[in-house]
Order: sequence, then C-alpha cells, then structure tokens
Amino acid sequence: MLEKIDLKKKANWEDTDERIKKLEIRIGELQRRCKELGIPIMVLFEGYEASGKGTMIGRMIRALDPRGFQVFPMEKETEEDKMHPYLWRFFTKTPAKGRIHIFDKSWYQGFFDDKLTPEEIRQFEKQFVDDGNLIVKFFLAITGKEQKKRLKALEKNKSTKWRVNKSDWSENKNYDEQVLRYDTLLIKTDTHEAPWTVVEAMDRKYATMKILTTLAKAMETAVKNAEGMKAASAGKDAEVESGVAAMEHEEFKNGVLAGIDLGKKLTDEEYRKKKKDLQKRLAILHNKMYLKRVPVVLAFEGWDAGGKGGAIKRITQAIDPRGYEVVPTASPNDIEKAHHYLWRFWEKFPKDGHMTIFDRTWYGRVMVERIEGFATEDEWKRAYAEINNMEAQLVKNGTVVLKFWMHIDKDEQAARFQSRQETPEKQWKITDEDWRNREKWDEYEKAVDEMIVKTSTKGAPWHVIEANDKRYARIKVLEIVVDALEKALH
Amino acid sequence: MLEKIDLKKKANWEDTDERIKKLEIRIGELQRRCKELGIPIMVLFEGYEASGKGTMIGRMIRALDPRGFQVFPMEKETEEDKMHPYLWRFFTKTPAKGRIHIFDKSWYQGFFDDKLTPEEIRQFEKQFVDDGNLIVKFFLAITGKEQKKRLKALEKNKSTKWRVNKSDWSENKNYDEQVLRYDTLLIKTDTHEAPWTVVEAMDRKYATMKILTTLAKAMETAVKNAEGMKAASAGKDAEVESGVAAMEHEEFKNGVLAGIDLGKKLTDEEYRKKKKDLQKRLAILHNKMYLKRVPVVLAFEGWDAGGKGGAIKRITQAIDPRGYEVVPTASPNDIEKAHHYLWRFWEKFPKDGHMTIFDRTWYGRVMVERIEGFATEDEWKRAYAEINNMEAQLVKNGTVVLKFWMHIDKDEQAARFQSRQETPEKQWKITDEDWRNREKWDEYEKAVDEMIVKTSTKGAPWHVIEANDKRYARIKVLEIVVDALEKALH
Repeated sequence: MLEKIDLKKKANWEDTDERIKKLEIRIGELQRRCKELGIPIMVLFEGYEASGKGTMIGRMIRALDPRGFQVFPMEKETEEDKMHPYLWRFFTKTPAKGRIHIFDKSWYQGFFDDKLTPEEIRQFEKQFVDDGNLIVKFFLAITGKEQKKRLKALEKNKSTKWRVNKSDWSENKNYDEQVLRYDTLLIKTDTHEAPWTVVEAMDRKYATMKILTTLAKAMETAVKNAEGMKAASAGKDAEVESGVAAMEHEEFKNGVLAGIDLGKKLTDEEYRKKKKDLQKRLAILHNKMYLKRVPVVLAFEGWDAGGKGGAIKRITQAIDPRGYEVVPTASPNDIEKAHHYLWRFWEKFPKDGHMTIFDRTWYGRVMVERIEGFATEDEWKRAYAEINNMEAQLVKNGTVVLKFWMHIDKDEQAARFQSRQETPEKQWKITDEDWRNREKWDEYEKAVDEMIVKTSTKGAPWHVIEANDKRYARIKVLEIVVDALEKALH
Repeated sequence: MLEKIDLKKKANWEDTDERIKKLEIRIGELQRRCKELGIPIMVLFEGYEASGKGTMIGRMIRALDPRGFQVFPMEKETEEDKMHPYLWRFFTKTPAKGRIHIFDKSWYQGFFDDKLTPEEIRQFEKQFVDDGNLIVKFFLAITGKEQKKRLKALEKNKSTKWRVNKSDWSENKNYDEQVLRYDTLLIKTDTHEAPWTVVEAMDRKYATMKILTTLAKAMETAVKNAEGMKAASAGKDAEVESGVAAMEHEEFKNGVLAGIDLGKKLTDEEYRKKKKDLQKRLAILHNKMYLKRVPVVLAFEGWDAGGKGGAIKRITQAIDPRGYEVVPTASPNDIEKAHHYLWRFWEKFPKDGHMTIFDRTWYGRVMVERIEGFATEDEWKRAYAEINNMEAQLVKNGTVVLKFWMHIDKDEQAARFQSRQETPEKQWKITDEDWRNREKWDEYEKAVDEMIVKTSTKGAPWHVIEANDKRYARIKVLEIVVDALEKALH
C-alpha cells in the first residue's frame, strides 16, 4: 500500500481553508449524531517517525466536542501494562458507546515488538467492528529525505532534542526496509471492516484535508448504517444525510495516476535497438524459466486503446509458442458465472515452467464490475483481500507475477479511437462499450487509483506504464519482464 | 474440540433405521431445493486414519440424486497438481451453483504438509461462503484402541493390506499427539461461517445419524437464507420449511455432560485429609506463583446450586488474600453495557503474580445470553472464536487458565433448592430466576455441551467436575488447581 503512493501531494487550492472549515463543522454534526446513536469510534494514528502524528491529531480534534473524545498516547508500556497480557492496555481503553477514542500509536506497535501477529490484530479489530464500533486507521507517510530533514530539525531544537533517538536514525538510514516492513503489515491488516488510509503527509494542509475527509465519510457511513438498522426495526425509512462527498475538491481525489509523466518517448531507432536486445534476452530467459520450472503470470490492464495488445505481442514474438498462453478475458460465460469469480482464472494459471499472459484480468471485479454495479459494494470491497490472497498463493508457489496498467490520457485515447474508426482493418477493435466506458473516465480513474494502492504487493507489484508513446510503453514492459525474470532465475 | 468428545456414543434406539430413512428423504428434497436456488455445496470429510471416511461418504450419498453430486478423493497430489499452486487442485474442483462436491480429504491435508496455514485455509473458505456456498465439514474420530483394531483388520485382509502404511501405525502409536495436532487445527478453523462437526465414529449408525442430521440442518438453513434473500428482493415472505429438528431422537443431542459419572463420592475422613494436604501445597504454590510472577485465572461456571461458591472458598481459605481477587459476575451494569461484552473481564484480569477467580464468567454469552435471547444468534456463534482468541492472549502472556463446570443432576439441584428455601440463612441464595433457569435445563445442557467442545483448548481447558457430592467436587477442583500450578511453576 505504500509502494505506489505519491508522497508529494499538496493542497494548494485557493479555497483550502474554507473547505477545511466546512469539514470541521460537518464532523461536529456527525459526532453528535454518533453519540445519539451510541456508535463507539476508534481513530488510530500510525506512521513513520516524525511524520507528524501528534500535529495531525491536534489538528483533527479541533473539529470535535472535547466532552466526547479522549486521546491516548501509547508510546511505551507502563510497568502496570507489562504486568498484563499485551492487549490489556488497549482493550481496557476502548470507547464506550457514543465516544471517540484516539490512539497516538496503537496495537500495531505490538507487531514490531513480536507481541502480536497480523492475524491477532485482525481478530482484535473484528470483534469491535462486529460489536458496532467504527475503526478509522491513518498511516502517515513521508519520504526518507523529508524524514531526515525533520529529525535534524528536532535535534537542533533544545526542547525537542530528546524526542530523537538512535532507532529513529537507523530507521531513516534503512528507509526502504522500513517502507517494506510497514507495507507488509498494512496489507495484511487492510480489512474490509477496518481499512487503512495512507496519508501523504509532506504537506500539512493536504494531510489535514485527507484526514478530515476520510473521518467524515467514515462517520457518515456509520451513521447511515446505524440509522438504517434503527429504521428497519422501527419500520420506517432511514434519514440519510450526505454532504462530505460534495465538499471535496475535484483535484483532491487524484491518486497514483495523477503523478504519471505521460511525456516519455523513444525514437524509432532507440526503439528498434532496445527491442532487438530485450527480445533476445527474453528468449533465453524463457528457456531457462522452462528448465528451472518457474511459472510466470503477466497481467495486463489499462485504458481502452491503451496498447495492451501491442505490448503483449512484443513479448510473445520473442518466445517459444509451446511455453506460453495468452488468455483474453471477456465477460464470463454461463459456466463461469455459476462459479466463484476467481475460478476461471485459477483454471488458467500456468504450470511450473509456463507463462500465462492475461489480456484483462481478475481486476475487472474492482473496475468494470464495481462501476457498472455488477458486483455489490460488499463484493468489490472484499475483493482486494481475496485477490491479494490469491496472488500470495501464486507467489508462494514460486510464480513470477507482474501486473501492468497501460496508462494514456483522455486526448490520446480520443485520437486512437478516431484512428480505429477510420481504419477498416482496425474497426473491430472499437465498440460502443468503449465510448460508454470513456464517459466514466473519472470513476475509472478513482477505482484504478484505489486498486493500485490496495493490491501492489512486493510479490505481485503493479507497474504503471506511461503509454502515450507506444514505443516507450512496449520497451518499458519488455524491460520490466526481462529484469524480473533475471532476478527470479538468478 | 477433540479433547472432550465422548467417542463411544451409540445409536441403539429401536427406530434408528426409520429415522435415517426420513432424513434421507428430507435431504433429497433439500438437494432439489438447493439446485433450484443455485446454492453450491461443499462437504468435507476429514478424520483419523481408518475412522471410516469412505464408508460414511458411501452412506451419505445414498440420500443424494447422483446427477447432482460428485465425490473427489484427494489423497495424493498428481503430477499435474504438483506443477501448480497448492490450492489449484481444490479451487478448480469447487462446485458450480446448485451442485454438491464431496471431498474425501481436502485442503486440510495442506496444513500437515506445510503448504497452508490455518489462516490461509480460513481465507480460502471465507471467499466461497461470501459467494453463497454452503461448506459442511465433518471430522471423524475414533479411539486409539479402535484405530489399532481397524488397522490390524485391514492388514489381515489381503485386499485391503495395501491401505495401511508405516505412517498410519506411527500415528496410532502417538495417538495423543495426533489428537492434539488435529485439535489445534480444528479450533483454528472452526469459523462461524464454516464450522466443524466432530463425528463420534465408533458406531456406524450413530455416525450416519449425526452426519445426515448435520447435513440436513445446514441445507435447511442455507435454503432458508437464500429464500429469505429472494423474498426480500421480491417483497414477500420467505417460504420457511423445517423438519429436521423434529426428526431428532431426544437422546441424540446428548454431548459431553451425558457421559459424566455423578456417583463419585468421598467420605468425610478422606475429604478432611485430602483437603488439608492440598491446601497446604496450594499455599506454597501461591507464594511461588507470586515470586515467579505467574498470573492465574480460575473460571467457575456450573448449574445453579452446583457448588461454585463452596469450591471457590476451599481455594481462597488456603491463600494470602493480598494475592487474589474473587470477581462475581452479575448482569452487566450500564457502563459495562456501553462497552464490548468482554471489556469488563479484561478490566479484571490479574496482574502477573496474581490470581483472579471468576464466579461466573464471559461464558454467559453462550449460555444465558444465548438462551434468553440477550445475544443474537450471530453474536453468540461468533463468541466462541472471540473467547478462544481472548484466552489465547492470556495464555500467550503466561497465564494459567483453568475453567470448571460444576456438574450436578436435576434431582440434586431440586434437593439443594429445597434446602435453600427451608434454611433461613441460605434463602438469599435462591431466586425466582433459578427456578426459571431450571425449566430450561435441556436447552442449557445443549448449550453447555457445545461450549465445552468449542472452547476446550490445550492452553485453557475445561474441567467438568462431578459435583453431586460436594466433598468430591471440592477436592477435585483443588487437585486440578494444584496440579496445574505445579506444572506451570516446575
């Protein structure tokens, strides 16, 4: 969840302060409603050292009625804590109905102290969600460079010097390891019931907006659900208020894709040279892969006309047709529909030593099925974990799993659609559905952003391919495949 | 789940065959209804070697329309299987809507081959339950002696000799270890969505009845749920059929408690001698426990007038009052009600080196709250896992956890109630509620049987105390406490 985050986001819109004020007022309203409905709320702040957890908690509580919340700094275990089971100090601090408890660091520290497994953490949270609690989890992330700067600033100041210790510096020095450690934990505990929100915390205003927006939305949903249940038992319709969604700045939603530089290009000469070299290496690697019995899964997703087909072709051109299969994914047929949505992909996973290239994939669940309503909210939300688990099984078996998002912008897509319609031999490639999908570009972008964050894992990473230039895109895909195979066969 | 099972149960009622026939007819009806409703069903058979899985599958399928089911013997991985991720051979064999797939051994073998963790197994099953599958899991258990007998008989017969191998004999020789290994796995995968049914498989007819009854009930529930959903979307009431419950023999429901010998007694002289000795040892152990900082939790449950108070007193008499606390559990107060139901117990758990004795406990959730409807079916069913997880946290912290069920029969309770009412200084001990509970004896017995099976773990075992004779009961409790402390402080 941390690998693909663009940490440099800023909230530099004219009306940022105004928006924040509106969110604060809304949160105050929601707090009163949660109290009336008896909803207990836990808000967790985790993050890298010096990422600003304390500051952000201070910022957040401005929106809250002080009679209804309490902040618990959970840095170190007290003597009393140590004399009890590890979860004791957390369980005894869980909120009563209608109250908000904010944890500055939480039970997640138990993972790093070898006191809790991710499974135990999930069990712990689940029992509270099942009991009607709302759990909102924030993870504050900054770059290694920024962390270094902040730690230095803290050390320079006499009054804050004590806050920096050796382990902070060692974390900073091993920033990449730190990211990986946290990422593993976050992915394993990003449940449907209690999801993580990663907060890009370089810019304080951006972080504030993201935290307030997320909290307000979560509270709105909890209120809606509780009112729904109350209404159901009282036999009348729920009083559904909304509002937070409307308060969002249109640019605020932008995620991973917004940071992609689509200007990258290759000349024809560069392209030919690189392609020749890469395909040669790929052919040799494909052979080794077969001999060493390593299975490979390549998963292609992307905008319509994003160039999936072309990229796949540059791979298959290079390799022995007996050793790979290309699986195009269309709408499921009747037999497939009668099974679990992942069944048809399991059927196609490669034998050891073989390569399967999926042209569109199981990620349809969290894109087209989500947007077109073919999957319920419950279904597509739990799909992230189902997919992560499935890919983990592939990786456990030694499979090389690579996922590509072929990324173009809206203008480029228009040009390609146009060209397809005008070229007789390409007309089959363009359908009414493509035009309909194009109208939902923003919805897809949001879904893709979420998908990439939630399902980028070390074992099965997403690669966003800058694909406005077809040559650049094809070479980048080839490079990633060759690199990954070289590493796997090393 | 296996520790407290009485394996010697028999179905020797006059009308057993007739009842089995009725169940078969009912299952046939339900199969048709499941097909109409498009419910996929998986039935898993696991168990000790020679426990009769094959026979029982053969027996079960007699009730089914052969066009609608398929049996998959999953003994060994094929070459093809080995060339895929471990779960591949199972995922690709999962049933389409409306079909029944029966697995003779299943993905649970992956646990013993170090291919799957209990967590991965739960994830695997959960995705199918979430998708509308019914998963019924049977575990067939026999005694070590019976296993030996059956293995010998198989070896003797030329045509079955090949079925017995070295590992079967080594399992039989280490029967206790085998039970423990399976028990750990069963407890960790006994989920609310896909629970285990342990089948006492010494007597074939008993096993047949239990399997058919369990299957029929599970199908009935699945049909009811699916009809409910259909009705909800069609806007009309569900057509709820029942029937299996009525087919059960009244003795069939008897579980752990039925096998308890309540005739055990001690003379007054034996009692005094043993008590003196045990209390002396307990005092010394209590001191050691304090010095070694070992926390202890004693949990007392039992029938009203079962003698909890008397047993607790014989413990506390012996030990330093600064080192223990007795916590009586009544209905939760308002503050407690505003929290998770386990919160008030977490508040009371002992510090290291201290002992907390609970007079009634968190098990109220699966007894009185279940029976009186204070907890919903969903709530008390998920409580088994919540409680097991909580006790696992105590055990992880080094806590000695002992749970006692003070068991008397209905006549003895009547006598004690009578005596309480007639003795002025004991009258406070008897209330109208006690009489009301007594009327629900059978319901309680069923709940207690289920509770003991589902929450007896190696780290936090249940002890059923034969308590018709107060002296015998008090000594047995003291012995168990002394033994456990001696082991823990060894």
